[in-house]
Amino acid sequence: MGETYAGAGVDIDLKTKVIKRIADQVRLTHRPEVLSGVGPFGSLYEFKGYREPVLVSSTDSVGTKLRIALALGKHDTVGIDIVNHCVNDIFTCGAEPLFFLDYIGIGKVVPERLEAVVQGLVQACQEVDCALIGGEIAEMSSVYTGDDYDLVGFVIGVVEKEKIIAGKTVVAGDVLIGLPSSGLHTNGYSLVRKIFGETREALDTHYPELGQTLGEELLEPHRCYYNQLKPLLPFIKGMAHITGGGLIENVPRVLPEGVAAHFNSPTWTAPPIFGLIQQRGNVDRDEMYHVFNMGIGMVVICSSEHASQITGVLPEAKVVGEVVQQTGEARVVIE
Amino acid sequence: MGETYAGAGVDIDLKTKVIKRIADQVRLTHRPEVLSGVGPFGSLYEFKGYREPVLVSSTDSVGTKLRIALALGKHDTVGIDIVNHCVNDIFTCGAEPLFFLDYIGIGKVVPERLEAVVQGLVQACQEVDCALIGGEIAEMSSVYTGDDYDLVGFVIGVVEKEKIIAGKTVVAGDVLIGLPSSGLHTNGYSLVRKIFGETREALDTHYPELGQTLGEELLEPHRCYYNQLKPLLPFIKGMAHITGGGLIENVPRVLPEGVAAHFNSPTWTAPPIFGLIQQRGNVDRDEMYHVFNMGIGMVVICSSEHASQITGVLPEAKVVGEVVQQTGEARVVIE
Repeated sequence: MGETYAGAGVDIDLKTKVIKRIADQVRLTHRPEVLSGVGPFGSLYEFKGYREPVLVSSTDSVGTKLRIALALGKHDTVGIDIVNHCVNDIFTCGAEPLFFLDYIGIGKVVPERLEAVVQGLVQACQEVDCALIGGEIAEMSSVYTGDDYDLVGFVIGVVEKEKIIAGKTVVAGDVLIGLPSSGLHTNGYSLVRKIFGETREALDTHYPELGQTLGEELLEPHRCYYNQLKPLLPFIKGMAHITGGGLIENVPRVLPEGVAAHFNSPTWTAPPIFGLIQQRGNVDRDEMYHVFNMGIGMVVICSSEHASQITGVLPEAKVVGEVVQQTGEARVVIE
Repeated sequence: MGETYAGAGVDIDLKTKVIKRIADQVRLTHRPEVLSGVGPFGSLYEFKGYREPVLVSSTDSVGTKLRIALALGKHDTVGIDIVNHCVNDIFTCGAEPLFFLDYIGIGKVVPERLEAVVQGLVQACQEVDCALIGGEIAEMSSVYTGDDYDLVGFVIGVVEKEKIIAGKTVVAGDVLIGLPSSGLHTNGYSLVRKIFGETREALDTHYPELGQTLGEELLEPHRCYYNQLKPLLPFIKGMAHITGGGLIENVPRVLPEGVAAHFNSPTWTAPPIFGLIQQRGNVDRDEMYHVFNMGIGMVVICSSEHASQITGVLPEAKVVGEVVQQTGEARVVIE
């Protein structure tokens, strides 16, 4: 018998069936601007109602958090992670999300798993009224071995040019407001997996300080700050999404020359997972702040007179530091 | 000694260095609309000059063509592949590309390899005046083992609403014009690798009918049709980018109900690589047309009176068939 594509590990028919099954879910996210079914090779979005629009885009992946999802056989939250990660990223410029595309690279098509992933994407897109407009499922059994896969997200949003938030007006004396993370979000998983392993036994271990198993804790979805913070945009001078690199690397990205961020760590309590990681891995304190968000998922910078307007509306938002004149080399000091 | 992120296989510093090294290349693609350095967590593109703009987006990956690049240690063409693939996809709606984002998932950062990949992205983006506006390099040694990586692209383009090309006006009697592919483009590699293997010996074998080695043939970049066909848009009713699924699956995507595509295969010559694959793999003829582009990378549909306007300007474009009333179940017949 001759060679076939299916025999080479690519089952186009199964993939087509799965895409049909998820299409109804995906349509739930479609805003009227989505010209569905019009462009078979591209996804079409009618763009109107802006004066001086600037498109804001970002791409990222869930990283090795996927390995935890795989170990636990639970795939309905990683889609939430990637949407929220991307939406937070573009929101730091003040942008509202318009539409999202996903890419799933997989070794083999497992319909239930793909449907669970898409369910997470749909849920998170609906939360922020973002259209899940397109995507690709690429079967590559030679790259993605066993059950492995990768999940990549792309988001496009828009902001009026005069309303771009870029931290340019930040000055010494401004206030740093921290919004709590829901856990590790999507960063630091390679280190966590090295410390705890990723066996079912390790992940199913219940820790009293976490109030749940390690696996449950590690799969907590990345939190989205868009809906909470959007009404407060007029008070916000800069926002830093605390991803890989932690407070140390991410906050300077929105600071103008000459100023530094001074965090007062006793003002917030890092969730117990971070203490557990530090202790089990004997991880240096600096390394912890360099890798993990340490309990703060988004830093908002505003003038001191506006701080109470934000903390008044969002009780969980806390003043965690201030902007100071930069004296040494450090752009971020955590005391 | 305590655990560190670098010890867990994630070298943030090396990644930062590589990103700095590729930044100069990437800036070569920046149109004035790119507000560089403004949005640190998102990429900003100023969007102006359209009346009723529709944004057209697409995402795809290079697939297992990457395995050939890896086997040959040649990484400067896969970036061309993914840009051209994505640009062709959105161009089927009549859209011009505006900007592109890439995602590279890798096991370990190899600076020279990443620079080669980005060089290909930059080259192809420059060809079509598309800004390489953002991207992500994700280090995931547990997912991407050894030298493996994945390369994903995401393009955003725009078309005026009244100029969307969607095949809606296609009628029986219209003409199918084929534009030659440069080889396999980015589809069918899993099957090819199953047939020939991916050893250095197999790929370095010189085939007289190819005029080059198998590896060279298989790495031929995916061709972009944007610059050639853009001036001819007024004559074009529909376009099908011939990717996975071949003529059989892709052409029906732009056909209205009730009509079918009738290809007259003696009107074009499939390049020798397809004959070689078919013969070595003993692949069924139908399967060949279902998996490979068989020498046609783009099908353009126009009325019969406009056909000569296209073939006159593009000598390599050939009338390869016609649109007919659909009689049986088949939407595509290849005779």
